[in-house]
Amino acid sequence: MSAAILSAATVADAIVRLRERAARVHSLTNSVAETFTANVLLAAGAIPSMTINRDEVPHFVAGADALLVNVGTMYPRFTEAAEIGVEAARRHRKPWAFDPVFVDRSPPRLAFAKSLLAQGPAIVRANGQELAALSGADGGDEAAERFAAEHGFVVARTGPVDLVTDGTRSVRVANGHPYMAKVTAVGCAVTALMAGFAAVGQDRLLAAASCLVTAGIAGEMAAEKAQGPGSFVPAFLDALYLIGPADIAARMRLS
Amino acid sequence: MSAAILSAATVADAIVRLRERAARVHSLTNSVAETFTANVLLAAGAIPSMTINRDEVPHFVAGADALLVNVGTMYPRFTEAAEIGVEAARRHRKPWAFDPVFVDRSPPRLAFAKSLLAQGPAIVRANGQELAALSGADGGDEAAERFAAEHGFVVARTGPVDLVTDGTRSVRVANGHPYMAKVTAVGCAVTALMAGFAAVGQDRLLAAASCLVTAGIAGEMAAEKAQGPGSFVPAFLDALYLIGPADIAARMRLS
Amino acid sequence: MSAAILSAATVADAIVRLRERAARVHSLTNSVAETFTANVLLAAGAIPSMTINRDEVPHFVAGADALLVNVGTMYPRFTEAAEIGVEAARRHRKPWAFDPVFVDRSPPRLAFAKSLLAQGPAIVRANGQELAALSGADGGDEAAERFAAEHGFVVARTGPVDLVTDGTRSVRVANGHPYMAKVTAVGCAVTALMAGFAAVGQDRLLAAASCLVTAGIAGEMAAEKAQGPGSFVPAFLDALYLIGPADIAARMRLS
Repeated sequence: MSAAILSAATVADAIVRLRERAARVHSLTNSVAETFTANVLLAAGAIPSMTINRDEVPHFVAGADALLVNVGTMYPRFTEAAEIGVEAARRHRKPWAFDPVFVDRSPPRLAFAKSLLAQGPAIVRANGQELAALSGADGGDEAAERFAAEHGFVVARTGPVDLVTDGTRSVRVANGHPYMAKVTAVGCAVTALMAGFAAVGQDRLLAAASCLVTAGIAGEMAAEKAQGPGSFVPAFLDALYLIGPADIAARMRLS
Repeated sequence: MSAAILSAATVADAIVRLRERAARVHSLTNSVAETFTANVLLAAGAIPSMTINRDEVPHFVAGADALLVNVGTMYPRFTEAAEIGVEAARRHRKPWAFDPVFVDRSPPRLAFAKSLLAQGPAIVRANGQELAALSGADGGDEAAERFAAEHGFVVARTGPVDLVTDGTRSVRVANGHPYMAKVTAVGCAVTALMAGFAAVGQDRLLAAASCLVTAGIAGEMAAEKAQGPGSFVPAFLDALYLIGPADIAARMRLS
Repeated sequence: MSAAILSAATVADAIVRLRERAARVHSLTNSVAETFTANVLLAAGAIPSMTINRDEVPHFVAGADALLVNVGTMYPRFTEAAEIGVEAARRHRKPWAFDPVFVDRSPPRLAFAKSLLAQGPAIVRANGQELAALSGADGGDEAAERFAAEHGFVVARTGPVDLVTDGTRSVRVANGHPYMAKVTAVGCAVTALMAGFAAVGQDRLLAAASCLVTAGIAGEMAAEKAQGPGSFVPAFLDALYLIGPADIAARMRLS
């Protein structure tokens, strides 16, 4: 079913558009993820900016093509910046992707994440536990589809097989490598990249799924060159820079 | 004398337990060290979390197996988080490791470090100058042993040869490589890893020494593959991921 | 004309002095750049410190040989630290280098950068758009020379060919590699390194130009070993650690 929705050509086309547009992604993210997120965006062909200064965020969002909001290392100053950023994204009609990292570990974080969710992100990327906490359901496929349909956003639930759904259509992406869970902030950086894909594609389901295929294949290419999770990091960035239509066509695995 | 206290089998066993438990280490550290610290913990088999939000720290510490407190880039918000974190660690009886980085360079930092020290860390890791500043003595072996005995914690003084002491027993670890001093935050990350070892071992002296043997050998393994301090970083993370009993048995050097 | 001002021997000598002095550079920089900046300084032979705590900055600047101020991720706490740091640098007569990153993207940032500029940095490093925003002119060669002459600092405008000018003398550096623009914070880290070069050289024009030659050649050496912008990062740090007089003599390109 996934294959009828998403073709390798669609993914390859999205990568080309991201690079040609050099899409600007303003990324409000946690301090652990900032540097890696910026390098992932640059390697893939996008342009990152990261400031969380409340006076600057509206200017940066206005000049960007998309916004990322990640709730990790949630300071008061940060939560304010996130609210300002989301408001600016709505005003300028820029898509924003949301990463509710660790909401299952902290009640204040969950409460804040829910308040942001009500502001209409284009895409929510989360793992199963985070999604369960957010949706108040079980994090399974049906619950994810219902959650997406009710809110009108795309849900991208990542794991060994990723589920991307808007409630009506669903794509399952089987690409990826276990090293991606042994490096901090891979998920956070991929959500930022998803904002970039959303900036250059009308269809947000296809944008989110194309991003996960791209990142998953880059992870597989990198793992072939790596000796462990340390050497995986530079190899993953290289792969995001080098990946092309032939890699997508040869390696894309939907399920 | 060191060899009578710490065997290669003890170190190897500690590594296995850290991986099996996938020990959670909440790390309150400086912003320069955050990403590398998270990746060191992940590579070694532990699970990092890093938030310093005052409302979240108690939840994360409650769900963690150990806590790291590092005083680097000491903001007001950070010092508050450190105090809250230490209080939560005491309440939940989780071991915490303390890294008084650069206390010899800044009087306000030294004063804050002393106030935390009074809260009973399991382990204090510092270099000679930092230890001298903290203890008001000379940073030598006898002063370190006295400092540990008086406070009831383990002191791990790192340098070309590391001294780990609880005031009664002492272990000297000669493993390591000079590249470890040419990469930022190696010491900070190793202290976080020490908290992980303390979470899976009853004996804190053995936990601290096992951690330093592990990190030192990983450093030696990495240096053999590296062309300089840049390529040392991914190779060090790979080595922490790959290191096993045979490496410990073949390379452990106590003095 | 550049060649008459700057010789390969001058650059090589500056590198040796930086390493022998192990120049301390206190770096007030954005959170995205902190770790990489620290590793660039360490690889090149300098000693970084990074705290932005207002009570500590004067102590760290007093103990340092030079200061870096970068306006990226500009928080209220950060802008205060920058002002305190610059005041301490003036009082202790330490050179400071200034990086007005992204001033062309945000009016509050531009206003803050202009207020700092009035405090007399030794060197301002910026790209053409940032320089245009700062100077209110066009960012071209003549405007850069006029801007340097009027303010009495050195302007280092980086791009495919770098221009370093004090308004009277100008050096054009053609070394470098496009990967340097595909990795976050390379410019920020190079500005910090420039502060280190300024600490060990009387002539700030030669210090800034020597730094750009060194970084540019290291970038070329790294690119020869890299498969993409990911593997470029460790290779660049290795090259900064390994670079010597023979590399400078063989590769320096002024124009």
